[in-house]
Amino acid sequence: MNTIEVCLTPKLFDEIMTKENYIVVMVDILRASTSICAAFENGVKEIIPVATIEQAKEYKSKGFLVASERDGKVLDFADFGNSAFNFMNEEVKGKTIVYSTTNGTQAIDLAKHAKGLAIGAFNNLSVLADYLIKENKNLVILCAGWKNKFNLEDTIFAGALIERLLLNNNFKMDCDAAEASLDLWLTAKKDPLAYIEKAAHRHRLKRLKLDDVLEYTFKNDSTNVVPVLKGNVLIDALKE
Amino acid sequence: MNTIEVCLTPKLFDEIMTKENYIVVMVDILRASTSICAAFENGVKEIIPVATIEQAKEYKSKGFLVASERDGKVLDFADFGNSAFNFMNEEVKGKTIVYSTTNGTQAIDLAKHAKGLAIGAFNNLSVLADYLIKENKNLVILCAGWKNKFNLEDTIFAGALIERLLLNNNFKMDCDAAEASLDLWLTAKKDPLAYIEKAAHRHRLKRLKLDDVLEYTFKNDSTNVVPVLKGNVLIDALKE
Repeated sequence: MNTIEVCLTPKLFDEIMTKENYIVVMVDILRASTSICAAFENGVKEIIPVATIEQAKEYKSKGFLVASERDGKVLDFADFGNSAFNFMNEEVKGKTIVYSTTNGTQAIDLAKHAKGLAIGAFNNLSVLADYLIKENKNLVILCAGWKNKFNLEDTIFAGALIERLLLNNNFKMDCDAAEASLDLWLTAKKDPLAYIEKAAHRHRLKRLKLDDVLEYTFKNDSTNVVPVLKGNVLIDALKE
Repeated sequence: MNTIEVCLTPKLFDEIMTKENYIVVMVDILRASTSICAAFENGVKEIIPVATIEQAKEYKSKGFLVASERDGKVLDFADFGNSAFNFMNEEVKGKTIVYSTTNGTQAIDLAKHAKGLAIGAFNNLSVLADYLIKENKNLVILCAGWKNKFNLEDTIFAGALIERLLLNNNFKMDCDAAEASLDLWLTAKKDPLAYIEKAAHRHRLKRLKLDDVLEYTFKNDSTNVVPVLKGNVLIDALKE
């Protein structure tokens, strides 16, 4: 039986109990994990996640396409922000993109020492669940949160993924945070977009006029990709 | 308008946004906060919370009554464990008790720099809510958790307290963790004792045969006390 644990923010990652044979699913619904899936769906070849702005700038100076934001805003040297819509164009096809965001890429960095790392969002929920069932390992769902704080959007996604995995008899929840994520999802699932109206980051995006992508964000299965970390680079596991 | 923030585990205390004029409500439902309320209800004069076993031993050697446990078990040098039932006897009336537990007293230590610190549990829910409304300050509800991990029982209590405070128009939630706590409480409130069946610590207590006190724990308002920190000592605010 594989265990499922949820880490509600990166700051709690040291407290996870699962020590062996686990895959980390990194979740940053608003917006890195949603956007990374959208990018692969639109033909991006690989994504190099970097944790700092300095690293992103260095790659830019070497001629790479760079996606970079902090606090929701595109940085001036970057080619893209981190809205999923940024990657829905022909320009990205076959390209390598360097990606640095407020929460998402730092969470990826944290989880590098697991057996594997996959990116999860509503837009790849079904293919991700299938992939994880095939991989047949313990899971730690790592919510990127917002600057180490708990957030609702990542947590309800954790719950949605757990709901799918429990349909397979090979998985069981193994911590109170997993139970809470599932219960919050069961409250939210009737209308996730309406539920998330009260989330703090949803208001942040609204103020920045970056909330056009929300309807896309909470729609299931608009992509058929499972971004996974291979070495230091994200690729689509389903295209290997 | 006063803000309500929930800190889901002590490890996230540095991330709270509320910086001014706030009271911390410390919650450790299983079991320190429930037991501290029971102790005052049974006539304890004051409680000295200490974070380490060494401090507890030192007080013991000076002749104090000492309550001390780690991982749910009473320590051999102590007079009491931390079950609420331990304090329901004549022996404690008018006494000073030194109290050290796995999670609870360490959380108290963390919150010493707030404008005030109160102890919250289901057994003092109504009088606590009334007290906080009168105090009229911002709130940080600090869930003691289990060894820095999130737990369900403290979180649903945070939600229950928020539900009460929102009936007063002078309070509003100010973070996603508060929203999540309220939603989890709304799922749990029909039968909190049944809901908590799935909590990890509930199983831990069952294994240790320490779960006789659960029915008492999830019953509202069996006490009329609001333990608050004054200097380094907890007293009952309603008896001042």
